[in-house]
Amino acid sequence: MVRRLVVIGGDAGGMSAASQARRRQPVEQLEILAFERGPFTSYSACGIPYWIGGVIDDRDELIARAPEEFRERQDIDVRTGHEVVAIDTDAREVSVRDTDGTRSVHGYDDLLIATGASPIRPDVPGIDAAGVLGVQNLVDGQRMLDLLEREEPARATVIGGGYIGLEMAEAMVQRGLSVTLIDRAPQPMSTIDPELGVHIAEAMAQMGIDLRLETDLEGIETDDTGNVRAVVTDAGRVETDLVVLGTGARPNSDLGAAAGLPTGARGGLVTDARQRTPVDGVWAAGDCTQVFHRLTQRPTAIALGTIANKQGRVAGINLGGGYARFPGVLGTAVTKVCGLEIARTGLGEREAREAGFEVVVAEVRSTTRAHYFPGATWMRIRVIAEQGTGRLLGAQIVGEEGGAKRIDVFAMALWQGIGVQELIDVDLSYAPPFSPVWDPVLIAARKAWDAVDAERLED
Amino acid sequence: MVRRLVVIGGDAGGMSAASQARRRQPVEQLEILAFERGPFTSYSACGIPYWIGGVIDDRDELIARAPEEFRERQDIDVRTGHEVVAIDTDAREVSVRDTDGTRSVHGYDDLLIATGASPIRPDVPGIDAAGVLGVQNLVDGQRMLDLLEREEPARATVIGGGYIGLEMAEAMVQRGLSVTLIDRAPQPMSTIDPELGVHIAEAMAQMGIDLRLETDLEGIETDDTGNVRAVVTDAGRVETDLVVLGTGARPNSDLGAAAGLPTGARGGLVTDARQRTPVDGVWAAGDCTQVFHRLTQRPTAIALGTIANKQGRVAGINLGGGYARFPGVLGTAVTKVCGLEIARTGLGEREAREAGFEVVVAEVRSTTRAHYFPGATWMRIRVIAEQGTGRLLGAQIVGEEGGAKRIDVFAMALWQGIGVQELIDVDLSYAPPFSPVWDPVLIAARKAWDAVDAERLED
Repeated sequence: MVRRLVVIGGDAGGMSAASQARRRQPVEQLEILAFERGPFTSYSACGIPYWIGGVIDDRDELIARAPEEFRERQDIDVRTGHEVVAIDTDAREVSVRDTDGTRSVHGYDDLLIATGASPIRPDVPGIDAAGVLGVQNLVDGQRMLDLLEREEPARATVIGGGYIGLEMAEAMVQRGLSVTLIDRAPQPMSTIDPELGVHIAEAMAQMGIDLRLETDLEGIETDDTGNVRAVVTDAGRVETDLVVLGTGARPNSDLGAAAGLPTGARGGLVTDARQRTPVDGVWAAGDCTQVFHRLTQRPTAIALGTIANKQGRVAGINLGGGYARFPGVLGTAVTKVCGLEIARTGLGEREAREAGFEVVVAEVRSTTRAHYFPGATWMRIRVIAEQGTGRLLGAQIVGEEGGAKRIDVFAMALWQGIGVQELIDVDLSYAPPFSPVWDPVLIAARKAWDAVDAERLED
Repeated sequence: MVRRLVVIGGDAGGMSAASQARRRQPVEQLEILAFERGPFTSYSACGIPYWIGGVIDDRDELIARAPEEFRERQDIDVRTGHEVVAIDTDAREVSVRDTDGTRSVHGYDDLLIATGASPIRPDVPGIDAAGVLGVQNLVDGQRMLDLLEREEPARATVIGGGYIGLEMAEAMVQRGLSVTLIDRAPQPMSTIDPELGVHIAEAMAQMGIDLRLETDLEGIETDDTGNVRAVVTDAGRVETDLVVLGTGARPNSDLGAAAGLPTGARGGLVTDARQRTPVDGVWAAGDCTQVFHRLTQRPTAIALGTIANKQGRVAGINLGGGYARFPGVLGTAVTKVCGLEIARTGLGEREAREAGFEVVVAEVRSTTRAHYFPGATWMRIRVIAEQGTGRLLGAQIVGEEGGAKRIDVFAMALWQGIGVQELIDVDLSYAPPFSPVWDPVLIAARKAWDAVDAERLED
C-alpha cells in the first residue's frame, strides 16, 4: 500500500525532508505532497539582503530548486500557492486553500510541519502601514525591491540591530538611501559581547548609518495615503520613507498549535530528536520548531537555514524509514556587514552566566596571516571558558576580511566539550599566507587558559 | 640556589621553552643560557620562500624576537654564533665553540636540545657544489638571495616536490627564473592523494614550471670553477645555474645521539609527552625530535614551526616547575602555491591503509561562498573514513583562495575521534559570503557517511 507524506512548507526544512524521504522510498511506496503558501520553493532567505543591496543581480539565483524540478526529478508533488489552513490530527487530514480561494482536504499517513518563521512585528500603532516591510521570504524581498524602484525613497529606517537588521541597513546604504537604525539595546548585534560589539557600531557609523541605540519604537506615522512618514521613538521622531523590520523572527507555530501540538521555547513546536511531535504521525522541522541547545541544555528557537536544512534531513531520513537524530545546536552564526566579519558560537559572557556558569573571559587581537605577510588583516577573538575546569563555553570573532570563518574551529571544539587547555595543543594548520605560527584560535585558547589558571590560583 | 637551564638552539622550540620557563621562574631562581649556532633567533623559516620570492621585502620581518630582546626583556642569556659541539650527560656539561673558534664548557642542571632539522642532501656526486642550496634557515635564505643578486642566474632546478620544493619553485618563477622541478614521485606533493594532486601539477605547468616526475636525481655537474652547470637524472640532463633542495628535512639529532640519547622515527630524538629524554635532566623539543601521531598511534618526525612552538611551550612549562604534556600531532599542513591552496590533516588514503585501516573515501566539489555570491571560488575536498565505524581518519582540500583553512575544522574533528555521521550535524556557521548553506566540510561528511553506509549494506 502506498503511504502518503504531506509536507507543509516548501523551503529548507520541508523540502530537505521531502528529498531525503524520496531517496529512501520510491513513489510506489511513498507519495509525497508538499504545500507551499508562496510561489517559491527552496530558496536562500539569507541571500535576500544581498539581492536587495544589489550584490546579487537576479532573484532566481537564490532559488536552489524550483517546484517543477521537485516534480520532475523526484516525483515530489509540490503545490505552490496552497496554504494549509487547518490540521485534523484525529482524521489525519489537512485543509488547504489555494490562491483562488478554492478549498480542499488531503489525508496523510505522516505529516511534516515546516512552516518557518515570520519577522516579529512590534505591537505599535501604524505597524501595518504600507512601507513597513520584513524580509523573511522572497515575496517580501520582491515587494521591497518593487517599492524601492517604484517610489525611489530617500530614507529608510531599520528597526532592530540583529543580523538581518544590520544586513538590511547596509543594503539600503548600498542602494543610496539615507539610513537610520533603531535598537532598544545599548549596541547593535546584542548577540555579540559589548567589548567586540563596539567595532560594529563604529563600522556602521563610518558607513554613514545613523545609529539610535537604547531607543524604543513607539509608533509609525503615516500620511493621508497611508504611507509611512516617520517613526516615533521615545527619543524623538525620525522622518522616513520606508521601515524595514529587522526585529528577529518568531516560529510560525500557530497552525500546529491550533491542531493541539505543544509549543515551547519562543513558541516553537516541540519535537524529539527524530523531529517527531508528541502527536502520532506528525513531525516538524526548521524555523517553526524549538531546538535543543547543547551548552545550556535547554530548548531555544533559532531561525537559520543551516539548522532547518539539518533538521529537515533528519526528519526525511526517519520519514523514509531510516534512523537519524538531530543532536542540537551551539548557536553558531556569522555575518559580514559594513566591511566587518562578525561570528559567534556557544555562549556569550552574559548568556553563560545566565545559564549558571561561572566564567573567565579572554580577549586577543591577532591577524589572519603572518603579521609580515601581505594582506594580513586584524581580528579580535573573545573566548568564554568555565571557571575552574577551563571548559570552552563560547567564542566570538570580529575583524576584517578572512577571519570570521575560524568560528567553525571553535564550534567543532565546543561540539565535544573540549577544554581551553587542550585546545592550545590542537594541530591546526599553519603557513604564513594563512595564519601566524600560533593560529589566532590557539592564541585565544592560551590566553583563556592563563585566565582560568590565574583564577584558580587565587582560590 | 640558582639552577641553570642550558638551551641548544635559538629558534621556535628552544626559545619558546626558554620564554615559558622564565615566565614561571625569575632569574634569581633559574639562570637561562641559550646557544645558537647561527646569528639569528626566533625566526620564521616558513616565511623564507616568500622572502626569496619577493612577497616579503625585509628579512627582519621574519624575525619574531632578536637576541637582545631575550636578554633585555626576559633575562635570557642568548649567545648567537655559539655552537654546542658535545654534551656530557654524566658531568652535566656542554662544550661550546664560538665563531672565533674559542672553546668553553658550561654546566647545566637541565638541558634542552632544540637543534632543529636540516634539509636532506641527496647522496649523489656533486651535491656539495657551489650553487646547491637548501632553505632551512635565514642564513641559507640570505645565501640564496645573495647568489640570485650577484650572479643573476637564469635557470633554477628544484629537487623534490614537497611543500618547500613547491614554494621555492614558485619563488624562483616570481624572480623571473626559468624553473624545472624534479621529483621521484608520480606527482608533486605526494602528501596529497593523487586524485587532488593532479590540480597541483596543472597549476605548476600553467605557471611555466617544467615538471619532471618519476625522475631520479643521479648527480650534479659542475663547471671548472666548481659551480653548478647541470643536474643529471635517470631521464636525462637538465642545464641549470642553481639547485634548490626541497627534499624534506631530517632531525638534527647527531649531537644528542653522540651523547647517548636514543633516536627513533626518522632519526628524531625520543622524548616522553613532557618532552623529557630518557636521560636525567635532558629535554628535547621541536624538529630534532620524534612526535606521536594521534591516528597511527606511532611516532613520526615532522619539521614544522607550529609543532616546535607547541613542544617548546610544553618543555618550558615543565622546566619552569609546571606541568604540561604534548598530546601529539595529526599531520596537519597547509600551503599556497601557484595560485592554489592545498591542505591536509590526518591520514591520506594510502597512509590510512598502511596504518591498518580499511577505509572508504569520498570526494566533493563545492565553493567558498554561496554559489551565487560574488567571489565564490571552487574547492575539492577528499575525506577518508574508517569502513564500518565511519570514524574520520583524514581530509584534504585543494582549491582557489579562501578554502584551505577549513582543514582546521577537520583537524578539530579528528582530534577527538568524531565519526563522519556525527560531523554532518555539527553547527558550523553559515552566511552567503562565507559558505553554501551546507558548508563544504558538512557536504564532504555527508558524502563520506553515504559511502560508509553503502559499504556496510553490501556486507
